Amino acid sequence: MALTVPVNRNVLEMEYAVRGPIPQRAAELQAQGMATIPCNIGNPQALGQRPITFYRQVLSLVEQPSQVARERALLSAATAGVEPVPAEVLDVAEEILERARTGAGAYTESAGFRFVREAVARFINARDGFDPGSKLAAGPDTIFLTDGASAGAKHLLEMLISQPGDGILIPIPQYPLYSATITRCGGTQVSYFPDEDSGWTLSRETVEAPLREARRRGVRVRAIVVINPGNPTGAILDETSMREVVAIAREHGLAIIADEVYQDNTYGQPWSSFAKVIGDEPIPLFSLHSASKGFHGECGHRGGYLELRNPPRVQGTNLSFTDVVMKQASVSLCPNTMGQILTFLMVSGPREGTPSRALYLRERQQVLDTLHAKATMIRSYFDRMEGVECFGRIGAMYLFPRLGTLPRSSGDFEYCMRLLEETGMCTVNGAGFGQRAGTHHLRIAFLPPRDMIEEVMPRWVEWHNRYVKQG
Amino acid sequence: MALTVPVNRNVLEMEYAVRGPIPQRAAELQAQGMATIPCNIGNPQALGQRPITFYRQVLSLVEQPSQVARERALLSAATAGVEPVPAEVLDVAEEILERARTGAGAYTESAGFRFVREAVARFINARDGFDPGSKLAAGPDTIFLTDGASAGAKHLLEMLISQPGDGILIPIPQYPLYSATITRCGGTQVSYFPDEDSGWTLSRETVEAPLREARRRGVRVRAIVVINPGNPTGAILDETSMREVVAIAREHGLAIIADEVYQDNTYGQPWSSFAKVIGDEPIPLFSLHSASKGFHGECGHRGGYLELRNPPRVQGTNLSFTDVVMKQASVSLCPNTMGQILTFLMVSGPREGTPSRALYLRERQQVLDTLHAKATMIRSYFDRMEGVECFGRIGAMYLFPRLGTLPRSSGDFEYCMRLLEETGMCTVNGAGFGQRAGTHHLRIAFLPPRDMIEEVMPRWVEWHNRYVKQG
Repeated sequence: MALTVPVNRNVLEMEYAVRGPIPQRAAELQAQGMATIPCNIGNPQALGQRPITFYRQVLSLVEQPSQVARERALLSAATAGVEPVPAEVLDVAEEILERARTGAGAYTESAGFRFVREAVARFINARDGFDPGSKLAAGPDTIFLTDGASAGAKHLLEMLISQPGDGILIPIPQYPLYSATITRCGGTQVSYFPDEDSGWTLSRETVEAPLREARRRGVRVRAIVVINPGNPTGAILDETSMREVVAIAREHGLAIIADEVYQDNTYGQPWSSFAKVIGDEPIPLFSLHSASKGFHGECGHRGGYLELRNPPRVQGTNLSFTDVVMKQASVSLCPNTMGQILTFLMVSGPREGTPSRALYLRERQQVLDTLHAKATMIRSYFDRMEGVECFGRIGAMYLFPRLGTLPRSSGDFEYCMRLLEETGMCTVNGAGFGQRAGTHHLRIAFLPPRDMIEEVMPRWVEWHNRYVKQG
Repeated sequence: MALTVPVNRNVLEMEYAVRGPIPQRAAELQAQGMATIPCNIGNPQALGQRPITFYRQVLSLVEQPSQVARERALLSAATAGVEPVPAEVLDVAEEILERARTGAGAYTESAGFRFVREAVARFINARDGFDPGSKLAAGPDTIFLTDGASAGAKHLLEMLISQPGDGILIPIPQYPLYSATITRCGGTQVSYFPDEDSGWTLSRETVEAPLREARRRGVRVRAIVVINPGNPTGAILDETSMREVVAIAREHGLAIIADEVYQDNTYGQPWSSFAKVIGDEPIPLFSLHSASKGFHGECGHRGGYLELRNPPRVQGTNLSFTDVVMKQASVSLCPNTMGQILTFLMVSGPREGTPSRALYLRERQQVLDTLHAKATMIRSYFDRMEGVECFGRIGAMYLFPRLGTLPRSSGDFEYCMRLLEETGMCTVNGAGFGQRAGTHHLRIAFLPPRDMIEEVMPRWVEWHNRYVKQG
């Protein structure tokens, strides 16, 4: 007879739909031989996206340093049928191995290799036009490398939430890492609702109304989370909305947690980091980035970083917020080294003017063009589905259509489950991310190969138009 | 003017000496040009231990799958000056790539690649003599791959601790991951004190006395942590002590958390897993293993696993403990893939009868022999230090000598800091792990190259004998 134990209620109550009942049912159907189309998660390489050649060439060499000299020998030997590894790739691998000193097999500093953090700082400064010598410049001491962006978000929420009355403002809908972690930490989720019909934009009142209401209930709101481009909405936030967030943070003494992991998935549209919008205002800003998304799609490598800007002092101590993040990081010893090195490659890329650079740019363009074309294609099918509408500039890897009226007061969970069972299409229903009461949505990652989309979407259209007509 | 924010007190109170003030001071001294000897942490490859060739050959190929065909071409081309990669290595890489399907760049299942979990199950069954068909057999559904062992330990403690009155029995001294995580989760550390003078063994009363005392104070003790071989003590637990732990767990309804990351660091002495000692008793057992230690020393890759044995039911739900661990794992999406594949290599190794197997066995033996020789050497120097005694069978990567009486009522923190400043030797003082009141210790990782040990130890002996004489 198995023992029965109590388990932390916050952990039990945590929900994470991206890997919830619908994907679990898809796995069962797949095991029974049904062809399912996994659009429940932003996992590009699981759907055939090929890694960027340069990244993997370098990682492969870093795993086995003796390969560098061996490949140099091959470069000069010109063996028939064996493509040589370009000299510029060997140079980068050699540089990394020299600067990493202890290689891939040793714990690094808790915050990650310093040379990688320096490269991240240069990347931020170049991206946002910060003069490296200025007080706006990013620096390695306030950058923490992380196992994907999730680890950074968890550290922040664990620090900011002390008691049930500590609140975090999060957009609804949102990526459920935030709601799940707030629940696990025993804090209070304070929801704000970007305006769907105007493309998921924000007004001052959008955020201030729930903030006031939370305060009235005695909730101490610590920070506001913004996901830009959005997840699950995919929408790119306009600068006016961003300025409203900054104004609210300033007036109400909030920190901003900017989840910017989709910053490369903007498909030619303007995008701005919160670091740039804040400029020289002393508002605490914690920004997250990841190697899992963008055109990289290196989810499995779990690389990412957290930048602290204007880190606050810690009440009742002589510590900075940075010191405490460092302590959090040190208990996990260090982020995985291959994820760290991938982050280095993500923020630096191959040297200008080399053949590897040209290849990298072609691959990048091809991935992003394909993603955008697929998003546009899927969205055009939504126009043929009765009652379905989809808002916002296309960004990230997701569309989040509103489903209109569903029959027999069924919700979007039932819709998505039936859609899966009857067409093989695996999505996540809107309730898994949160949504305005009375609305129904789903999130679809626009990642499957084009022919798969062309095959399934007409079937979905037909299924949908039948489904919504059922009395 | 920087904002001041409150930060979760549990996070602020958490302590982690392995990366605390002494190592931080060492980093400063190093930056000032002093040669320091980093014995504060079990990080073998930072001290010159070379990776196991087979592991890195395979990882390198998995990072870049096209390399497999290229290396096969090289095998037949026999290019002068270019050592070919053995066919059996190419076979293993090919098998992994086939079984992993989505490669290193996609999220895996939350628990990790199934084929790796199956390999872990086979490893446990072979190690402990469990018939794969029997009810004792390990299976992939109760194994979770993790980013190092730390991630597994954190999941467990986050689940088991709900309130300040929830207690976890931990040995003193202990690896501070446990005390730090209990503090962060807001639980109660219930300390038990293995008997140093008899080689860190356990009697029934050793554990039951603090358990009774905790219960008298209203603490609900949920689990007992055992680290075997020990960290920081390095001591290998005898089977009699293990049977006492099992009896206590049985009688008091406790789960056992068995930290067995040093199971390969036993240097020819008998060692048994808790899974084996428990046998068919229905006691919940959560075991941790890691690719960071052993002869692998692959700390940076953050590979490891957690096995749940006799997972309990969760009170007030229809869930198993396994379901909740799965949910925890899913919020982090998945452990890093290269750590997962390294774990596969750790539990399977190169195929029997191949040249790669022979090389692997030689490398393994060489690493373990060298570690044991260095431990013995350092321990013999302790004999020449006034008042210093060191107990227990040598295991893990650490010695934890008792320092005897220190002058001017200074503690071991001051001893270790002075030792660092005056000899460059960086250790961690006993208080960082906990110790019996009134005693002084330090932990030293026996990893530096032999010549470095031979150079520094006589200076330490001399310094020590001078230090303890100061009035």
